[in-house]
Amino acid sequence: MNYRMIKYTLGWLLMFEAAFFLIPMITAVCYGEWMTLLAFAITGIICLGIGWLCVRKKPEDTTIYAREGFVIVSLCWIILSVFGALPFIFSGSTTSFIDALFETTAGFTTTGSSIFTEVESLPKAILMWRSFTHWIGGMGVLVFIMAFLPLGGGQNMHIMRAESPGPEVSKLVPRVKHTAVILYSIYLSLTVIMLIVLLVSGMSLFDAINTAFATAGTGGFGFRNDSFASFSALQQVIVTVGMLVFSINFNSYYLILKLKFRDAINSEVRAFVLIVATAIGIITLNIYQTYLAEGKAVTDALRDAAFSVASLISTTGFSTADFDLWPGLSKTILVLVMFIGACAGSTGGGMKVSRLIIAFKGFVREINTLIHPRQVKQITIDKRPVDREVVRSVNAYLACYILVFVGALMLISLDNKDLVTNFTAVTATINNIGPGLAAVGPTANFAHFSGFSKLVMTFTMIAGRLELFPMLILFSPNTWKKG
Amino acid sequence: MNYRMIKYTLGWLLMFEAAFFLIPMITAVCYGEWMTLLAFAITGIICLGIGWLCVRKKPEDTTIYAREGFVIVSLCWIILSVFGALPFIFSGSTTSFIDALFETTAGFTTTGSSIFTEVESLPKAILMWRSFTHWIGGMGVLVFIMAFLPLGGGQNMHIMRAESPGPEVSKLVPRVKHTAVILYSIYLSLTVIMLIVLLVSGMSLFDAINTAFATAGTGGFGFRNDSFASFSALQQVIVTVGMLVFSINFNSYYLILKLKFRDAINSEVRAFVLIVATAIGIITLNIYQTYLAEGKAVTDALRDAAFSVASLISTTGFSTADFDLWPGLSKTILVLVMFIGACAGSTGGGMKVSRLIIAFKGFVREINTLIHPRQVKQITIDKRPVDREVVRSVNAYLACYILVFVGALMLISLDNKDLVTNFTAVTATINNIGPGLAAVGPTANFAHFSGFSKLVMTFTMIAGRLELFPMLILFSPNTWKKG
Repeated sequence: MNYRMIKYTLGWLLMFEAAFFLIPMITAVCYGEWMTLLAFAITGIICLGIGWLCVRKKPEDTTIYAREGFVIVSLCWIILSVFGALPFIFSGSTTSFIDALFETTAGFTTTGSSIFTEVESLPKAILMWRSFTHWIGGMGVLVFIMAFLPLGGGQNMHIMRAESPGPEVSKLVPRVKHTAVILYSIYLSLTVIMLIVLLVSGMSLFDAINTAFATAGTGGFGFRNDSFASFSALQQVIVTVGMLVFSINFNSYYLILKLKFRDAINSEVRAFVLIVATAIGIITLNIYQTYLAEGKAVTDALRDAAFSVASLISTTGFSTADFDLWPGLSKTILVLVMFIGACAGSTGGGMKVSRLIIAFKGFVREINTLIHPRQVKQITIDKRPVDREVVRSVNAYLACYILVFVGALMLISLDNKDLVTNFTAVTATINNIGPGLAAVGPTANFAHFSGFSKLVMTFTMIAGRLELFPMLILFSPNTWKKG
Repeated sequence: MNYRMIKYTLGWLLMFEAAFFLIPMITAVCYGEWMTLLAFAITGIICLGIGWLCVRKKPEDTTIYAREGFVIVSLCWIILSVFGALPFIFSGSTTSFIDALFETTAGFTTTGSSIFTEVESLPKAILMWRSFTHWIGGMGVLVFIMAFLPLGGGQNMHIMRAESPGPEVSKLVPRVKHTAVILYSIYLSLTVIMLIVLLVSGMSLFDAINTAFATAGTGGFGFRNDSFASFSALQQVIVTVGMLVFSINFNSYYLILKLKFRDAINSEVRAFVLIVATAIGIITLNIYQTYLAEGKAVTDALRDAAFSVASLISTTGFSTADFDLWPGLSKTILVLVMFIGACAGSTGGGMKVSRLIIAFKGFVREINTLIHPRQVKQITIDKRPVDREVVRSVNAYLACYILVFVGALMLISLDNKDLVTNFTAVTATINNIGPGLAAVGPTANFAHFSGFSKLVMTFTMIAGRLELFPMLILFSPNTWKKG
């Protein structure tokens, strides 16, 4: 294990985190929140100090292997959250470090589950920091740092593989570093477009920046107490489209820029669109009569259904309606899309559509193998064969997912809450969504859980964001063995 | 597809089903239930008639392949349930054919979910038939028929593989037929021992036979309205032990008879005992204070916890306490053991312990492969390597399980019941348990579901009993293609 290299990367991470604080600090200056400014400044100095101590000497041996890649990524996400939580404490927004850590982790992992019962009284700079953590975490912070850092070598691939969502990592261009730059450029451009559209729709600058950050990262921290219900219908539609745009594999946007339209609309994108359309259709049919009875229009039902489906499948977690009150069928579909999640290579969480396609094709192949035992065919997606290792890894991911899910469910059920709350709380955190149902529904929050349960869910949020393996590797004795 | 052979086997199945009716017919004579006797007699004549038409001519070509094996097994289970449902209608026990079909399927699949709100007023012969279906279905009806039928050839293996629970089928002796005879002998002997012990404990003959059938098949149809709560503490303990005994791989009993004790206590048995003990321990700790507050003893809590865990992990479904009222932690553990299920090669349902062991080892291997990509090791269980195909098949089973589970959940949520009811109704039927929680809890029943939902759950019960693939193969176009 190359410990020097781990320390070196963590050091750079802290320096970057200090730089990230500039955004909330500017906000604090604009709104004259001097105490909050001080909170960020102090944390920034701490980060810079520790970071500088770690990066003073570049290690002679910069070689890292898969093992180091995983360890660096998981440790970075933990450290990022721990230091990112400090301003919440220093500014007096909360007195509990566990609460601050939960909130910050929910930010970076783009979960958006909150422990604040009331957000409108928080300093604007804190609200901005919450939204900005979504934006940083959405595309992956190490991928970002790699675009700048002179780490050298093809070893960046190990880090990119550990941090990027989806069953496979495809390099757009031969060098990982350039791939990172391209992806971040697309990310930034789409965010800016989103921001401009929101401003044109009449949103204030503060609201528009927060919304753009939270939508682009598919995070979903609300900065109003009613999440997104009090925004105009037009703004809700814009955010619906936005959430879906950021749920699609960014490689597709690169391919569109290269005018390779056929490759861009691959089977994952088609499946995603189909799932979204079906879910919206069924839910609208299921709820429109209640809407009519309440004196609202069918279009209101459609808009709320579309917003909720987009919000949960993209794993953003904004809400315009209290879907916890919707009928059983709608709630079942919403829980299902929570598990499905977005496309691989997007900022969204969940199991990812491509992983489910591979699992489904593996199942169809198994049926065919049972019928004709001598004809074992390879799985293909978009006419290209899927590597055996990828299929095996998807299966291991599913087993791993069930294991982490069940473990977390058992631990938080020690709090003695009802089954739906426990089940959807784990669902919402492991899939990086935000709200669940019942006591963690869209109008509720996570404040009522015990400190222990909050720590468990802090773990599931990071594990879910990094797609389980990097966090679990920390617990394997093999990881820490010499050699 | 060898249709003649399918028809021939189905014919024999119906002849055997007519013979099975002798048990309830004797009961009807004993209790003077002449209308019920007539109901069984008419159904028996119908079965014999149709059966005779099918078996008149033995097919010249008796060759069957894997494909035919699956089709025969799934069709047999459907036909068995359809004809087994007729006495419920003819005797006037219910007027709905869907209800009768649901009840009979719940019997043969050893699920034990009932649509009767009140069972004590049913004819004794009907109660006996319900319990006897558990016993027939427990070990597998085709395995039974194979022990008698002159089908010839090693092709019986295809049928045995399709009907026997667990990821692998091991032949105890070279010939499949002899293996079937040995397994049924062990099954019959253990059932007789159970019956004698129950009689010694002071149970009436009728109650003892019903209990022995339902416990041996891990079925769980209650023949009293309070399931097992009104039986004595000693009888509850006997049934607890009985349910666990029938949850263990019958191969282990064969090995014990052969004095191979070390092979008998394999890793699956050890894991099963560990899970049961842990679950009972945690639940007892979780509920004993409530028991003390109600004036009961700690031993009552222990007995109820042990009974409930044994009942749900063996997928029997008897109940002595309303565990729907227990705290969240206990309910979570109970739902988990519902999924785990019994050992492979037992009469119990669920995912099977050995399958979970393989999935878990596959996950550990994946973690190690990520740490050291060049060291890919084969999975071993009890120091023997597990065949790659078995590992792949376990993974396909998990994917398939999720697919069927989610599909069924969506379809029954059209009834607009609460999430816990929907979720545990599917859990209880696909794992062949019986009761779930909330509106399908131990004191409730399945009568309130729509006819459509009952059909869906009839499907999940058979699919669960046959471990999914045989039923799903019926839907694959490849199955019905020529060649």
